[in-house]
Amino acid sequence: MATIKEVAALAGVSVATVSRAMNQSGYVKAETKAKIDAAIQQLDYAPNEVARTLNMKQSKVLGLLLPDMSNPFFTQVARGVEDTAMAHGYHIMIGNGAMDEHKELDYLATFKANHCSGIIASQLSTAHAFEQLQHDERPHVLIDRVTADDYCVEADHRQGGRLQAEAVLRGEGQCVLIVYQDQSYQSFRQRFETAREVLQKAGCTVLELSDLAMTKAQFLTLIHDHRIDSVICSHDVAAFRVLKWLYHDGQRVPEDVQVVGYDDMPLAEWFVPGLTTVRQPAYTLGERATQKLIAQIEGRSNIERKTLLDVTLIERETTRRK
Amino acid sequence: MATIKEVAALAGVSVATVSRAMNQSGYVKAETKAKIDAAIQQLDYAPNEVARTLNMKQSKVLGLLLPDMSNPFFTQVARGVEDTAMAHGYHIMIGNGAMDEHKELDYLATFKANHCSGIIASQLSTAHAFEQLQHDERPHVLIDRVTADDYCVEADHRQGGRLQAEAVLRGEGQCVLIVYQDQSYQSFRQRFETAREVLQKAGCTVLELSDLAMTKAQFLTLIHDHRIDSVICSHDVAAFRVLKWLYHDGQRVPEDVQVVGYDDMPLAEWFVPGLTTVRQPAYTLGERATQKLIAQIEGRSNIERKTLLDVTLIERETTRRK
Repeated sequence: MATIKEVAALAGVSVATVSRAMNQSGYVKAETKAKIDAAIQQLDYAPNEVARTLNMKQSKVLGLLLPDMSNPFFTQVARGVEDTAMAHGYHIMIGNGAMDEHKELDYLATFKANHCSGIIASQLSTAHAFEQLQHDERPHVLIDRVTADDYCVEADHRQGGRLQAEAVLRGEGQCVLIVYQDQSYQSFRQRFETAREVLQKAGCTVLELSDLAMTKAQFLTLIHDHRIDSVICSHDVAAFRVLKWLYHDGQRVPEDVQVVGYDDMPLAEWFVPGLTTVRQPAYTLGERATQKLIAQIEGRSNIERKTLLDVTLIERETTRRK
Repeated sequence: MATIKEVAALAGVSVATVSRAMNQSGYVKAETKAKIDAAIQQLDYAPNEVARTLNMKQSKVLGLLLPDMSNPFFTQVARGVEDTAMAHGYHIMIGNGAMDEHKELDYLATFKANHCSGIIASQLSTAHAFEQLQHDERPHVLIDRVTADDYCVEADHRQGGRLQAEAVLRGEGQCVLIVYQDQSYQSFRQRFETAREVLQKAGCTVLELSDLAMTKAQFLTLIHDHRIDSVICSHDVAAFRVLKWLYHDGQRVPEDVQVVGYDDMPLAEWFVPGLTTVRQPAYTLGERATQKLIAQIEGRSNIERKTLLDVTLIERETTRRK
């Protein structure tokens, strides 16, 4: 039997357009519609399949639950999810859980009420919210959170921590401050622990400071008292704050103090000096998670349960190059 | 007859929680549910109203169509929409139109297919997409786009342009370059034209350069050839690029050249030097648009058709203060 892909290829349009035309769910030019109809007839494609899916109370909508929509990392993830979903004829419904259990549970219920076919989620605030997701009958994929049983996609944060440490070592760092983020998240813990391990093995002195508790005064006291020559941050926004405090203090970057971030936010290159940082494949994380989710929805077999993606070091102007 | 608000007040919970409990659409603690039930009984509140709304094929979902989800301005707008929607027991479905007519029409169709009660939209790529929105039977509200007949909410961009010009004049700017954005958008055109007018009235020389066409070489040639002492940008990202180019060129900011942005993106304060810019009330734009939309959905009268919100100048370190 012919597939929707073959219909699309013969009509010279995308699968999404064929889907729109058949579901009458969107705008399709009359001329395009005619081409699609001709292809359907020629291939003897049975549109009943589509009608059946629609009657099964499954909309072509995927739920995406994000912990922080104002974080550029997650908006990049969302674009990857959206582009991939649309290429397969799906749309996305985005919920901003905001690390608030009530909001998260509310969105999971809304996804259900709107017959979403599947859910992509990242960090959730509580174990209870996470269980609700796991017990939902719909397929789901996790981003940046790995468990034994769930389908998940994550960046290699151990590699990320190693790249941060190596960048600092290349610039002859000897006394390094690591500004760390919430250690209850595996993604933050892995990058922090690996960076510390690599630095200590190389004989560096390593100091630690929590990003949440960090004040300008506290940070600068540490820098002076311990003659810190390098700072590794768990995310770019912390690195931007550190850069500004060092500037106010008259420290030269990278001559006196090197700084390494994590994420490669879109503005990292425009800072003065440009931030050396670890680029997360945010868009690709969204893309892969969506492919994995659609494969489950469509009942395909042999779906890879866990996908680990490489991160890359982007060397700019905040590290010393010898 | 009692209202859902009175039930919420008596039970000591939010309207959203009462709505969740009654629609069984989300998680509500047994203890909370009992309090709500008691309040309903005491006030003789008729939950049939809610059931009727549900049967009218209207979900408690609002569609939000944004032109660029990776722009922090729009993620702030989205948070305002979301918080306000949730406080009224609604959820949002976000579509990223990406200034692509097909995507926009697709999302409008998806909102319809999912029985969204109303739509909030900003810029759309074509007149055709805009007409589709206007001809939709659902209520809609526009953000940052004003027409004669639609409900809309916008920031006062004439005021914004004036504030940019006045900041430059306070720093004794005499030869000013305005880096402008796509003039087919009223919001960009108004800020640009007003800034130019105020500067020319004050006797300044004003040069213009399109942000889209601008290269580093072209920008620096203008700066040198015309001894430009101030740059006004139509948005913060352009200002960040300008700051970096001036730094590479050895120009001191603000001593040699002042720079003023527009938006007040979350990172503007962390740049070195901190960017002087015009803050748009992005969150409030989303909030007001949602209030206006829900008022229409609930059939209220006397809804203000147009709302104009103030912008404010945030003076940081890129302008001279005499």
